[in-house]
Amino acid sequence: MAVITRYLEHATKGNGHAIDLTPDLARMLRETGLRHGACTVFVPGATGGLTTVEYEPGLLLDLQELWERLAPARATYHHDATWHDGNGHSHVRASLVGPSLTVPFVDGAFTLGTWQQVVFLDFDIRPRTRRLVLQFIGE
Amino acid sequence: MAVITRYLEHATKGNGHAIDLTPDLARMLRETGLRHGACTVFVPGATGGLTTVEYEPGLLLDLQELWERLAPARATYHHDATWHDGNGHSHVRASLVGPSLTVPFVDGAFTLGTWQQVVFLDFDIRPRTRRLVLQFIGE
Amino acid sequence: MAVITRYLEHATKGNGHAIDLTPDLARMLRETGLRHGACTVFVPGATGGLTTVEYEPGLLLDLQELWERLAPARATYHHDATWHDGNGHSHVRASLVGPSLTVPFVDGAFTLGTWQQVVFLDFDIRPRTRRLVLQFIGE
Repeated sequence: MAVITRYLEHATKGNGHAIDLTPDLARMLRETGLRHGACTVFVPGATGGLTTVEYEPGLLLDLQELWERLAPARATYHHDATWHDGNGHSHVRASLVGPSLTVPFVDGAFTLGTWQQVVFLDFDIRPRTRRLVLQFIGE
Repeated sequence: MAVITRYLEHATKGNGHAIDLTPDLARMLRETGLRHGACTVFVPGATGGLTTVEYEPGLLLDLQELWERLAPARATYHHDATWHDGNGHSHVRASLVGPSLTVPFVDGAFTLGTWQQVVFLDFDIRPRTRRLVLQFIGE
Repeated sequence: MAVITRYLEHATKGNGHAIDLTPDLARMLRETGLRHGACTVFVPGATGGLTTVEYEPGLLLDLQELWERLAPARATYHHDATWHDGNGHSHVRASLVGPSLTVPFVDGAFTLGTWQQVVFLDFDIRPRTRRLVLQFIGE
C-alpha cells in the first residue's frame, strides 16, 4: 500500500469553465504504477468544484444554466458587500458542488463509465492557472 | 492494509428511483473481514448519484420534488437537442449530486446514523440494471 | 500505512449553522503523527452536511439564502406529514450537500487553500451536540 500525491495545473477561463481531467488522471495513474485503489481529486480553493459529466458541448451549456438557476451571477451576495470582488455566486456554487471527488481504480484503470468524465469546474470570475491535488492510495 | 473491490447490481426504475444500499454494504463489509477503514461507493455512469437519506416514503417523495424544482424534467436541455435521448435533466441532476460517496467503518460496522441510509439515485429515464463499484480500503 | 479514527463533538444551533472544523482537523492530524494521506470527515445522521467555504460572515449568510432558495423551510414536505417533526427541509438540504468529505494531507498539512475552510452544516431545527467521524488513512 502506498500514498502518492501529484499536482496538476490547468489554465481556466473561470465563470463555470469545465475542464475534462480524465486523460490527465489516466496518465498519472499509469505513472504511479499502482493497480488497485482510489484517487482523491481535490481543489485547494473555495471557488472550484469537482464532479463527473458526459463531456459534450450540450451538457456543458446545461450545467451553466443549472448554476445560473441555482445561484444567479447577478443576484446580490453578502460576500460582495464585504469584499467587492464580485464572486459571491462563485463561492456558493463551489460549496454546493464540493471540492473533492474520490474515484476507484481497478487493474490500473479508473472505474468510470464510457461516457463519464471527471471535470474540474472553475466558478471564479477571471481566467487563471489553477492547481489541483491528485492523491492515489493503493497497491 | 488491503484494497478490496466488489460490485453490486440493482434493477432500477430510473426517474430518480432511490435504492437503499445499506444492507448490501453491511453484508459486503462483513465478507471482506476488514475491521477499520472506509468504503467508496461509485456509480460508473453520468446519470446516477450517491448520497444518504432517512429512507422513508415521505422523504423519497420530497427528494423527487427537490430534483424537479432544481432541474425540471420538462425544461429544455441542450443535451437533448444533440442526442434526442430526453435525459438532459438526468445528467444535470447526477452531476449536482455526485457519483461518489466515502463512508468510514469502525470495528466492522459503518459509522452511519440510525436513521441514515446510503442511497443510489438512478436519474436516467428508463428501467435497467445498474452496476455499482464498492471499494474497501482498510485493515 | 495506518487507519486512525477519531471523533469530534460540537454544540450547534441547527438551522444551517456552519461550524469551521479546520482548526480541529489540523490539531487531530498532528496528533496522529501521519505525514501523507487523506482524512474522511463523515456526519452520522441524515440532517447534516460537509463542504468547504471561505469562512466569513457574508458568505455564511449567502449559503443560508442558497439553502432557503433551493429547499425553503416553509414549503410543505411529505416527511413532516409522516413524522410531524418539521425538519423535512433539513433532510433534503443534507442529502443535497452530502455527509462525507475527503481531504488529502501532505507533509503533515491539509492541502486546503488559504481562504478555504472545512465546514459542518447542521441543517436540523434544534440546538444539540453533534458527533462527527474523522478517519485518517495514510503513513
